[in-house]
Amino acid sequence: MLTLHQMQESGNCYKVRLAARELGIPLRLKEYPFGAGKTRMPEFLAKNPNGRVPMLELDDGQFLPESGAILFYLAEGSRLLPSDKLGRAQALQWMFFEQYEHEPYVAVARRWLKFETKQALAAKQHLVPEWHAKGNAALGVMESHLAKRDWFAGGQYSIADIALYGYTHAAEDGGFDLARYPAISSWLKRVAAQPNYITLDESW
Amino acid sequence: MLTLHQMQESGNCYKVRLAARELGIPLRLKEYPFGAGKTRMPEFLAKNPNGRVPMLELDDGQFLPESGAILFYLAEGSRLLPSDKLGRAQALQWMFFEQYEHEPYVAVARRWLKFETKQALAAKQHLVPEWHAKGNAALGVMESHLAKRDWFAGGQYSIADIALYGYTHAAEDGGFDLARYPAISSWLKRVAAQPNYITLDESW
Repeated sequence: MLTLHQMQESGNCYKVRLAARELGIPLRLKEYPFGAGKTRMPEFLAKNPNGRVPMLELDDGQFLPESGAILFYLAEGSRLLPSDKLGRAQALQWMFFEQYEHEPYVAVARRWLKFETKQALAAKQHLVPEWHAKGNAALGVMESHLAKRDWFAGGQYSIADIALYGYTHAAEDGGFDLARYPAISSWLKRVAAQPNYITLDESW
Repeated sequence: MLTLHQMQESGNCYKVRLAARELGIPLRLKEYPFGAGKTRMPEFLAKNPNGRVPMLELDDGQFLPESGAILFYLAEGSRLLPSDKLGRAQALQWMFFEQYEHEPYVAVARRWLKFETKQALAAKQHLVPEWHAKGNAALGVMESHLAKRDWFAGGQYSIADIALYGYTHAAEDGGFDLARYPAISSWLKRVAAQPNYITLDESW
């Protein structure tokens, strides 16, 4: 069985759980508590020198980090990845967009505003306006895409939707106002209506 | 013929040229001069609401932005992408790593230190130490991987190497000292020794 090294509260880890549940792939979870620093210790760094979860452990003991790569690994050949070449590339387009333009602002704002102490946040408070400006720019790009389409790639629910859902659905934790984005709000409901949907908090 | 909307100096655009040349794929180039702001104008935003190059234009008039997605589109089924499922996922792992942990520091330092005016740089000068710390952390992760391997994914030269090469080979433009990284330095030479290699400056 595959083992997911993860942190329950992380949207990046949630994406992997959501895709695995959708595809009926069993996972064993190994939890790394938030703030405990265990992913930066030598035992973990020997598995992933980048010191981050999610990290998938395969049956043969190999390790695969990076949520986008894990999603692709789980979904290749399944209904969660478009079957045509351009559709697959468009799914990856949105997954790269999410990691470059969206996660560093939408997820980072959530992390500091929801999970850190007020004292820790004070040192980052000057960055909040930039997180909100750039995060809203990314949400604006999503809104313009969804104004004319139900899904992000290949005309179907895919790992691109899952990758973007991970932190978008929790953006209000980071001080974003999703009511400004009607097409995103409708898309969030379409994702949550998928038959095998699980919430971020849901235990495995 | 495919059209690449690009900026010659951009490492992200160079990655696409390098992969296309390696695969013998002809490209028509449409150049967007650095600093001219043309990718933020309505005509361009109608093609890519995210306002960035590289962007690939297909024969049927569809557009594919994001260097990682373009690399995957060009390389799928070729010798630049591992033929096994785990190898493909590992190539993507390093491509996501590059966009999240490396490009925002190594490429951004190069952009400000090499291409911007001293006056413009002054407003960003306080960020240089963070760019160098995080960029060196990413280079350290690459160094530890390459200490035991010739290539990033699947035991072969792939789009993962091309994605990481794009800005790593030009990191000294951003004030990074590549002499600190002997395994990276050897790998840079292996990439440059590929038979169809072109430099970043080389005209198409």
